[in-house]
Formats: sequence, C-alpha cells, structure tokens
Amino acid sequence: MSEFNLIKKYFTRLTRQTSLGVGDDAALISISNGMDLAISADMLVAGTHFFADADAYLLGWKSLAVNISDMAAMGANPKWATLAIALPEVNEAWLAEFSCGFFACATDFNVDLIGGDTTRGPLTISVQIMGEVPTGQAIKRSGAKVGDDIWVSGNLGSAALGLAHLQGKIVLENDALQASIHALHKPAPRAALGLALRGIANSCIDVSDGLLADLGHILQASNIGAALALETLPCHDFLRIHLNKPAFQQYVLAGGDDYELCFTAPKSKRKTIYSISHQLNLPLTIIGETHASTGLEVTYLKQKIKITKKGFNHFD
Amino acid sequence: MSEFNLIKKYFTRLTRQTSLGVGDDAALISISNGMDLAISADMLVAGTHFFADADAYLLGWKSLAVNISDMAAMGANPKWATLAIALPEVNEAWLAEFSCGFFACATDFNVDLIGGDTTRGPLTISVQIMGEVPTGQAIKRSGAKVGDDIWVSGNLGSAALGLAHLQGKIVLENDALQASIHALHKPAPRAALGLALRGIANSCIDVSDGLLADLGHILQASNIGAALALETLPCHDFLRIHLNKPAFQQYVLAGGDDYELCFTAPKSKRKTIYSISHQLNLPLTIIGETHASTGLEVTYLKQKIKITKKGFNHFD
Repeated sequence: MSEFNLIKKYFTRLTRQTSLGVGDDAALISISNGMDLAISADMLVAGTHFFADADAYLLGWKSLAVNISDMAAMGANPKWATLAIALPEVNEAWLAEFSCGFFACATDFNVDLIGGDTTRGPLTISVQIMGEVPTGQAIKRSGAKVGDDIWVSGNLGSAALGLAHLQGKIVLENDALQASIHALHKPAPRAALGLALRGIANSCIDVSDGLLADLGHILQASNIGAALALETLPCHDFLRIHLNKPAFQQYVLAGGDDYELCFTAPKSKRKTIYSISHQLNLPLTIIGETHASTGLEVTYLKQKIKITKKGFNHFD
Repeated sequence: MSEFNLIKKYFTRLTRQTSLGVGDDAALISISNGMDLAISADMLVAGTHFFADADAYLLGWKSLAVNISDMAAMGANPKWATLAIALPEVNEAWLAEFSCGFFACATDFNVDLIGGDTTRGPLTISVQIMGEVPTGQAIKRSGAKVGDDIWVSGNLGSAALGLAHLQGKIVLENDALQASIHALHKPAPRAALGLALRGIANSCIDVSDGLLADLGHILQASNIGAALALETLPCHDFLRIHLNKPAFQQYVLAGGDDYELCFTAPKSKRKTIYSISHQLNLPLTIIGETHASTGLEVTYLKQKIKITKKGFNHFD
C-alpha cells in the first residue's frame, strides 16, 4: 500500500471547520476575527515516550491528547492538528487502531486533522496542534504575581504510579491499578478548564514532565518563588496513604505525564475558581502560594523535603 | 545539557513577525486580515531521506527548504515554522551546524522559528511550515483545466543525478558534479515564483517525489490527462546528451528531490509567465499540455516511452 493510499484510508476524514483539508500541498484554515492562533508541537518516540508494543488505539488517543493539553495551558480553543508519522512497516491492523484512537480524541475535542506526513522509519509520531485565543487573553507562563494562589486540577501522580506498576517496581491492585493505568494511557486534557481560566489565571502550564519541573517554568518565567505543602497536593488515596515515603512523594511531585493544569491566580479569584470547578465537575485544589524570593520550597507536615529529581528530562 | 538549555542555545532566536515565540506552552501568531493560513508538514528520517552522516548544516537548510517549497506550491507566503527533532544524543557540534543551516534558510525566506520539540530517539526531523495566502487565491492541485499549458521551473533531474553519483551508480565530474550535488543538498524553494503565480496558474505542485508522480496528483485531482514531450523538459546539459537512455530519462521524469514548481496555466497567460520568468531570472519552460482524456502520456522524439517508476514511494 502506497503512503498516499495509507493517508487516504486511515488519516482522511471530513473536517468541520477547515477550508481545505488533507490532499493538497498544504491545508488552508481561516482564523476568526479578533483571535490569535496558538501553535504547539510534540514528538513521541517509541522506546522513549511509549513502549514499542503499546496499544495502538490508546497511543493514537494520547498522541493528540497531550497536544490539546498545551492548548488548554494557554487558554486556547484547540481546532486543528497535523500528524507526521514514521512507520517501520505498513501494518494495517495497527494503523486502523491508531487512527481510531486519534480520531476518537479529535472528535471529543472538536479538532480537525488537516494534514501531515507519512514516511518509513522507526516509529515516531509528531503532532502539531493549533487553536484560537482572543488577542491579549492567552495565559502565559510569565504572568504569575507575588501572592497568587497556586492551583492544580484533578489528581497528580497516578500516571507515574501506573508506569511503575508496568515496570514491575510496585504492585497495584483493584481501584488503584485501574485508575493509574487509565491515567497513564488515556489522559483527559483539561481543554474546558483552559477556556474558563481566560481572564482569571495569571499564569498556567500543563503538568507533563512533573509538577516541580513544570511549576518551575512558571516561576522562572515570572521571576518569583513558591512554597508548596505536599499534604495539600491532590492525589489518589493509594498515594496519599504512602505519602510519607520519598518514592511516593516523587510520583506526586515529579512523576509527570499527569496532563493536569497548574495555574496561579489572585486570591480574589478563589470564589470564581471554585465555581468553575463545580460547573466542570473537576476538582481544583490550592496547593501553595507564590512569593517574592525566588526558589521552590516543598514541605511535608511542615518539614522541608529534598527532591532529587524535579521531573523528566530527555538528556539527563 | 537538558533539552531546555538545548532549545535555548540552538533553536531560540529573535522573531520578526511573531507575537509569542519559543518558550511557553504554545507560540502565538496573528494572521493578517483577508488572509488564510496555509499549513504543511514534512518528516525527514535518517536512512530514508538523508544519509545518517549527512552534513548537518546542509541538512538544517534542506529541512526547512523542502517545507517552504510546499508553501510556494500553494502561492502562500511562508512566515512561521515549528521544528520537532529526535536526537540519539546531544552532539553540540552537530546541533550548532544544523541550527545554523536551518536559520540560514529561515533568514533568506523571512521565516520565524516559533516552536517545536526536542527529544531523544533515532534522528528524525519534523518541520511544520505556515504561510499566508489571500482567501480564495491559493493555487490548488485540483484547478487544472483542459487545454492548459504545463510548465516547470528551473531544471529537473539534477538532484537524482547527484544522489546516483554518491551511491556510486554513475561517475560525474566538473560542472555536472557540482551542479548535481548542489541541487541535491541545497535546493532553493521557489517561494517568489509561487507568489507571482497567484491569479495566473490554475494548479500547482512542487516536484519532490518526481515529475510524473507529482504532475499525476494534479491530473488526478483535476480529473484530466496530459501529454509530455521528454525532449522539452529542462535539464542540465549532462542529462540532455544522455536522454536517449532509459536510466537518464528516469532521473528527469521520476528522480525526485527537484523542488521546482510544476504548474498549469491558460495559454493566454504565456506572455505574463515569460515576463515573470524574466523578472525572477528563473527559467520557466512549457513541457506539455493537458487534455480531456485521463492518463499521462510521455513521448521522446514522438516515440511513446514506458516509465517503470513514477516517483518515490516510501512503502513500495
């Protein structure tokens, strides 16, 4: 099967908001008046980001989901994506599953797949996502102010826990196992939350490498510091009962792959944010506060704790 | 060196037409009024698209150039790019050269690098290019009309000839060698020509897989056929004197990697097109004509010739 037939069969579907989709030298889109275009790209490599024998459907889902998460972090409405993929061979069963998962996510989040590339090589997936945000309303990493509350959505650490189980480092059962594996394989990007935070959050980032690493980017870009109380971090009960152990602290603070939003906002916005939490049926938790002196301090039951690894770094 | 420092050191430069560049969860751009955004993506894999030991500077140049070529094929003005790259290791000398070549091309064509990703893996380069084209003026593959002239810019076959030399299949010398290697390693995308063809060409494509394959896309999308006379195809003298041999015919018709534009236009536009050729100091050659019956016929000195391979296909 040629790459053209492959694209036609597995990666071409009707679009909802695109002038010209897959099939020409480029796609064409029209940006709404008063909107900026937000653009983000991610590359996932077999052996680095996922196991080579990962479930193809879930991989397809996650490839797009992690990019939608970057849109959420900017307060942008995700609308279009391109997909460039290198395949070691044409495995139609695999492609069918992968594209199903990808389009399941695209449908859920109203994203059109508008272009990309298909080539031969070690399994590598490169997605670019594009979304709209009103000019001036994008939520940047550099906007955090001294005295802001630091918030995080959902739970942290579950995906890392799931990965540890699959690697044989720990043994999970029942609900903890199910929740962790689901968090690892099928993260739900917080797109609606991102939109709701426009004009409310001063800064925002999605937690992908790990809370400390990602919050660290906000602090660095905004030139401020923060103090976190570990016991306030939202996490699955299984993690909570083990939170006195450094290994489990590591999952929550630096496990990564959470795809929750970490954002800062003025204290005056608390009521509004709790209202958003209620409307979206999504837990939003205050985990700390920003302060003027730079640096990130983490305590557990008022004892300062030392973190060895802030988060995932490809070239460490 | 962490991936963040790597991005900062090698892939972050001042932008000229970008609201928010590298460094946040997404980049932000503003599209001019009355313009559509054209978007194209390409993935290059070591061992498939380039030799693993390819010159890093030239690879950087070509990674962007081949994408700008897709913008030219739409009549779009290239303005922004993202770069996602997987590296087997951090080799600073290689990165310095690669980024130099990439930015040399970006500077020449006034393209801002606005984002991307850096990760560990087998050397894979994924570039997405974005450009502006007035709404309704994009030159599509599907617009060719019966009785159009078929044109091509520059020369065909030189890059394929250069590759054959490097693979030891033929021996080139002097000017033929220099021109062929240059064509292979440092193609010049026809961006200015693409802009000039707005409102003039009915259809357009850039010749990347090979003339027959790429022209074939225009014919299929437009539901028409064409007849080409091989002796009219523009090519380097060295190819021309061997054009009676099937192997050399193959280079011109199906060698690929040319990055010239192949377009169709009404005969009434000939004078205008020759004027464009003169203004841009770029040869533009009529190589055939479209007709109603589908199919692509190639003759050499009025004898029909049989082509075994139309162009590059990854999964043949």
